[in-house]
Amino acid sequence: MDRVAIIGASMTQFGERDGWVLDLLSKAGTACLADAGVDASELDHLYVSNMASGEFEGQTGIPNALAHDLAATPAYTARIDQTSSSGGAGVYAAWQSVASGASDLTMLVGGEKMTHRSTAEATDVIASLTHPVEYKHGVTLPSFAGLTARLYLETYDAPRESLGKVAVKNHRNGVDNPHAQFRKEVDLETVLDSPIVADPLRLYDFCPITDGSAALLLCPESVAEEYVPADEYVTVAGIGGATDTHVVHERADPTTMGGVVDSSEIAYEMAGLGPDDVDVAELHDMFTILEFLQSEDLGFFEKGEGWRAVEEGVTDRDGELPINTSGGLKSKGHPLGASGVAQVYEIFAQLTGQAGSRQVEADVGLACNVGGFGNCVTTTVMEAGR
Amino acid sequence: MDRVAIIGASMTQFGERDGWVLDLLSKAGTACLADAGVDASELDHLYVSNMASGEFEGQTGIPNALAHDLAATPAYTARIDQTSSSGGAGVYAAWQSVASGASDLTMLVGGEKMTHRSTAEATDVIASLTHPVEYKHGVTLPSFAGLTARLYLETYDAPRESLGKVAVKNHRNGVDNPHAQFRKEVDLETVLDSPIVADPLRLYDFCPITDGSAALLLCPESVAEEYVPADEYVTVAGIGGATDTHVVHERADPTTMGGVVDSSEIAYEMAGLGPDDVDVAELHDMFTILEFLQSEDLGFFEKGEGWRAVEEGVTDRDGELPINTSGGLKSKGHPLGASGVAQVYEIFAQLTGQAGSRQVEADVGLACNVGGFGNCVTTTVMEAGR
Repeated sequence: MDRVAIIGASMTQFGERDGWVLDLLSKAGTACLADAGVDASELDHLYVSNMASGEFEGQTGIPNALAHDLAATPAYTARIDQTSSSGGAGVYAAWQSVASGASDLTMLVGGEKMTHRSTAEATDVIASLTHPVEYKHGVTLPSFAGLTARLYLETYDAPRESLGKVAVKNHRNGVDNPHAQFRKEVDLETVLDSPIVADPLRLYDFCPITDGSAALLLCPESVAEEYVPADEYVTVAGIGGATDTHVVHERADPTTMGGVVDSSEIAYEMAGLGPDDVDVAELHDMFTILEFLQSEDLGFFEKGEGWRAVEEGVTDRDGELPINTSGGLKSKGHPLGASGVAQVYEIFAQLTGQAGSRQVEADVGLACNVGGFGNCVTTTVMEAGR
Repeated sequence: MDRVAIIGASMTQFGERDGWVLDLLSKAGTACLADAGVDASELDHLYVSNMASGEFEGQTGIPNALAHDLAATPAYTARIDQTSSSGGAGVYAAWQSVASGASDLTMLVGGEKMTHRSTAEATDVIASLTHPVEYKHGVTLPSFAGLTARLYLETYDAPRESLGKVAVKNHRNGVDNPHAQFRKEVDLETVLDSPIVADPLRLYDFCPITDGSAALLLCPESVAEEYVPADEYVTVAGIGGATDTHVVHERADPTTMGGVVDSSEIAYEMAGLGPDDVDVAELHDMFTILEFLQSEDLGFFEKGEGWRAVEEGVTDRDGELPINTSGGLKSKGHPLGASGVAQVYEIFAQLTGQAGSRQVEADVGLACNVGGFGNCVTTTVMEAGR
């Protein structure tokens, strides 16, 4: 079967941004089209991944508004929402549009505008994704993270410091990412001494609230070179998605993310590749503990050994398996609908040698985007153009 | 290429319903699985088409909650929003999931819960889909409809009564639909004498605000008979989507819906069929005028002649081309995310001979779902199982 190629990618500056989400989407979309030298009128499909423009901004129908602003009409449009993994779900939808033959040229633009709302308001919208059974008891995603972190540290005899080192590593990587929200190193003491949010996790174990957008352009690989040279595109070797129990406390082992296991199995099988083949990965470090869990559930490390990989520098930029070279959600920021798209942007940049001072050696990359507390996950495996 | 088959379908009672949208989705999903004798654990993908659960109910992440309630975990889930055509966009997404090979068994459940909000609140959410340029001048979808109706009547010398006859016909059809919100005939005088909403359109030219859900089960046609006999499934012969200008006043001719023209051309071409092949159709009669426009832009009738077809009974249930045998949005109701799914449900019922007292003779059916004021449209052409 003809693979789907990603022939262009872009992202806006992440952080506190002026304007509406539509402005950010338009900016990323315009840059993505320019990256591949494509005119908006050539698009067959245009998807927007976004969780909550209605709740955050009182504006709906943003895919149609974006088609207008980019002059992409009559391209077909739709919005894809999968909470914090809306971006990954958008990648899956865009991939399906091309793989099904429905579209020969699809652009996905993910974005969210959140910082104009208070942290309490933004958190309330996000918390509404949890199961009502848990929500009514006041459980939020950060509290799940705290409980899971405590369980992980005790079960696997991991030091509290190892969690902090995820934040230190990802902040260090973010310094070299011009699009990152935070471009400053933090030392371990700063992380460990920051205010408690959900014991044992502290402020620096959490990603920030962010505005931003990212975009990708996809087509069948058979025509990719009509747009760009072979070394400027990547292919989606495998992609998959899966849910875990929506009620988090129903999970047999909360330190295992079933959606990561299942979605990556699908993606690996489609790709004919395994975790050992992956050279660089972007994981969903909404909380530091999630990077450990995903690095294990993706098969990179044995269960309970993810923390050692960070301690030993294996996941550093100059380590055997660099993880979150972009700075991750932790330092790059987490504009919900954009995050999964920006993960793929980073892998695209790494595999096409466009990652600048963040560049690592890589032929195969993986992005793992997590919705809720692993309630739904998409995993995408990419290879450099062939 | 192997076609995509629809092997099961269901819908809840439409109208004012108790509970949350999740309850309605769960009810329709359960019935759909039962219709095809499928267990939820067999699902690969589960899509929810819904415009605004966050705005209407303060609840997000409903696809994951539905996967939980149906015991469909670890099926992949996502929410598809395309405003009032979310249902059609969901059909397109579900079709793509199977046609791309990503899923061998996909369920789509569309739904909306609206009646617990005031008409003003609901209308405000819906109006937020229009372009800000128009929205800030107070333009709403009903006002577009009034302006377009006036233009149509004047341009094509159509009598005001012809619009009213759309309402009369669709209410008559709705009497025989046990799921319809309104199961009562109305006479032309009642329609013409009802309160003015947007001149020349009156209350009975508009669909109501509705709660409801509908569901479909899709798989490759090659395995359809593993689930149901050949006379109990239909195939998607062709499907397409397209946008028109998001700013309605930029359209050269507001009586032509470009999205309907473009999406149906894609669907017809994929199907190898044309408008003359269609035996029964469900059109998006959110306002009576829209049934005229779509019946022309789909190629059923010449431009400006759609009103004559209604006057002459061509689109009656016993006419040459029955339109909206379900009662249409007008009498069946319009729960945004469910409507496009319920259109396909009706065609499924007609093509599999399960439409009861609404049954017509048909081998080919078409559903046209319109988002906004034609801002984005999906058209689906279906054939009886072969």
